[in-house]
Amino acid sequence: MAKGLTYQDSGVDQSRKDGVVDKILHMMKRTYGPRVIDNPWGFAGLFSLNGESPIFRKTYRRPVLVGCADGVGTKLRLAHELGKHDTVGIDLVAMNVNDLLVTGAEPLFFLDYIATGKAQEGVLLDVVKGIVAGCEQSGCALLGGETAEMPGFYKDGEYDLAGFAVGVVEKGRLLDGKTVVPGDVVVGIGSSGLHSNGYSLVRKVVERSKVKLDAVVPALGCTLGEELLKPTRIYARALRDATRAHNARRCVKAMAHITGGGMVENVPRVLPAGCAVDVRTGSWPVPPIFGWVQEQGGIEEAEMRRVFNLGIGMVLLLDPYFVDVAIRRLEKAGERAYVLGKVVAGDREVRFRN
Amino acid sequence: MAKGLTYQDSGVDQSRKDGVVDKILHMMKRTYGPRVIDNPWGFAGLFSLNGESPIFRKTYRRPVLVGCADGVGTKLRLAHELGKHDTVGIDLVAMNVNDLLVTGAEPLFFLDYIATGKAQEGVLLDVVKGIVAGCEQSGCALLGGETAEMPGFYKDGEYDLAGFAVGVVEKGRLLDGKTVVPGDVVVGIGSSGLHSNGYSLVRKVVERSKVKLDAVVPALGCTLGEELLKPTRIYARALRDATRAHNARRCVKAMAHITGGGMVENVPRVLPAGCAVDVRTGSWPVPPIFGWVQEQGGIEEAEMRRVFNLGIGMVLLLDPYFVDVAIRRLEKAGERAYVLGKVVAGDREVRFRN
Repeated sequence: MAKGLTYQDSGVDQSRKDGVVDKILHMMKRTYGPRVIDNPWGFAGLFSLNGESPIFRKTYRRPVLVGCADGVGTKLRLAHELGKHDTVGIDLVAMNVNDLLVTGAEPLFFLDYIATGKAQEGVLLDVVKGIVAGCEQSGCALLGGETAEMPGFYKDGEYDLAGFAVGVVEKGRLLDGKTVVPGDVVVGIGSSGLHSNGYSLVRKVVERSKVKLDAVVPALGCTLGEELLKPTRIYARALRDATRAHNARRCVKAMAHITGGGMVENVPRVLPAGCAVDVRTGSWPVPPIFGWVQEQGGIEEAEMRRVFNLGIGMVLLLDPYFVDVAIRRLEKAGERAYVLGKVVAGDREVRFRN
Repeated sequence: MAKGLTYQDSGVDQSRKDGVVDKILHMMKRTYGPRVIDNPWGFAGLFSLNGESPIFRKTYRRPVLVGCADGVGTKLRLAHELGKHDTVGIDLVAMNVNDLLVTGAEPLFFLDYIATGKAQEGVLLDVVKGIVAGCEQSGCALLGGETAEMPGFYKDGEYDLAGFAVGVVEKGRLLDGKTVVPGDVVVGIGSSGLHSNGYSLVRKVVERSKVKLDAVVPALGCTLGEELLKPTRIYARALRDATRAHNARRCVKAMAHITGGGMVENVPRVLPAGCAVDVRTGSWPVPPIFGWVQEQGGIEEAEMRRVFNLGIGMVLLLDPYFVDVAIRRLEKAGERAYVLGKVVAGDREVRFRN
């Protein structure tokens, strides 16, 4: 008679997984503030809104919850090829938290989903290390997550990541772009490079270039692999400082997170009817990686603008009155900020001018 | 000179994707109640807590947000093999919402992450159809999500799903099991079958059995494939009816969602120190699929109990006084409910008795 089957025979080893879970819980606690209600072996994470506190009641009379979900995409393949897994977690948090920030929300908590064929403890802990770092940069709690072992679903050593962020914003302070008018100023905050978009194309370009990931590319000042894995910037702290620290509550009228689709597709999402944006090329420095990708791939300028952030990770639309103070505060918070152009009459598009 | 690359060459066709997104947004709106703030092309979903309403203020003085993340696991492989994709979305919502319910929370909203190699419109819309159905069953809004095309990452036609649910519970009504005492009664709510756990093992068993997925198995009363794809039951409405409709606010002291690990591992998660649970075997009907899996796989009883729900999808621990009314209300809401045993003195374990 054939030997009976156990769950372990099918590739899922629950007891081994439990050891890793303890280590992950320990790392998660670094992100816990006083609003997290400890529930380590519970079925769900608990986050107190502190609704009874006078500060909360004053700030949030009509609280709106903001939720978003996103992944890292094929940038993960590069982490796999380079065997470096401690930064893609920052990308994961960044893609979600930056999306959340454009509504005007304060990030509260984050949850992750890590799916893999067979969990390798070292890789898994590195991924979580990045997620924890991203949560610390965003000021949000890593409230929970799921690590799914799906034998036969993912290639050996590969994994996919999905993340989910929740924030809160007072209804009257939601940034919906409705007050944007011609004459408003377009300010861009610098990206760290490619962030987490366009990697399917980037990987094709790398293949075509025949440049090895561990080769130093002089124009980049580092190896190609190091450049491609640079983590996405998280703008939580800088935007909080720039928009909250003075009395002008409405100094920022709209924000756009520049992800796949570039400025061309992301800025119009927050433009009201009758408005367009004029952007002066050359008004900000385009990081060298974009020139390298364009040249090696023979990619047209228009396509570059439709796919990549080209050095601007976040776009703010502001009343001219607040531009100087906003830029000063963003720079004080460690970001580079540039006046890119202005809002003009038009049909919800971005126009590049020399 | 070689032709320049575009994003489309790399396998990602943004314009085709946008057409599908419109259809998905249309489906999502079926789940929108008055608390969802419409933001279709925005960066994040918006859900108003209606903090200013007298009802909210009366119910939630100290609101605690509850968040969870989960996937469907290798049950997805069966959907792929059977070419049936409109029910795994229900499983996805169920795995998250049932986790959320055990804290005592009211589900508010859901977000999904769908990752695939190349999005096939029909498959994608079927998956979303299931997610929408699950959200409707749970009374939560499908607030947003991400569809990631990751060429070369997933096999053709395959996809992975992750979901995230957020709910709210008044702090003083959090179900944390602290009030559970020996003498309390263990009530189980029937599952629809395997739900979404143990599928790596189930697939091994199916392989070993040589039974085809489209073969009718007399003991099951349907084809093997139909049985294995039965969607996970969502207990949101029934539990709301059973726990809210009468004055006894604290009739349920703790709940455990029976997922991977079975009753053996999930019930102890909500037991306080000094308590164990005695469960009488035979006090509930075990659906025939479990007998089939056990027999075909030659799996030991203890292993079955550690992996599968064996017919009980949710366990409630109640004061004896409330058992009859709770069961009556669960049955009125369309669930099957059984007295499985009782809480006894012991060390946070489940003991099966004949």
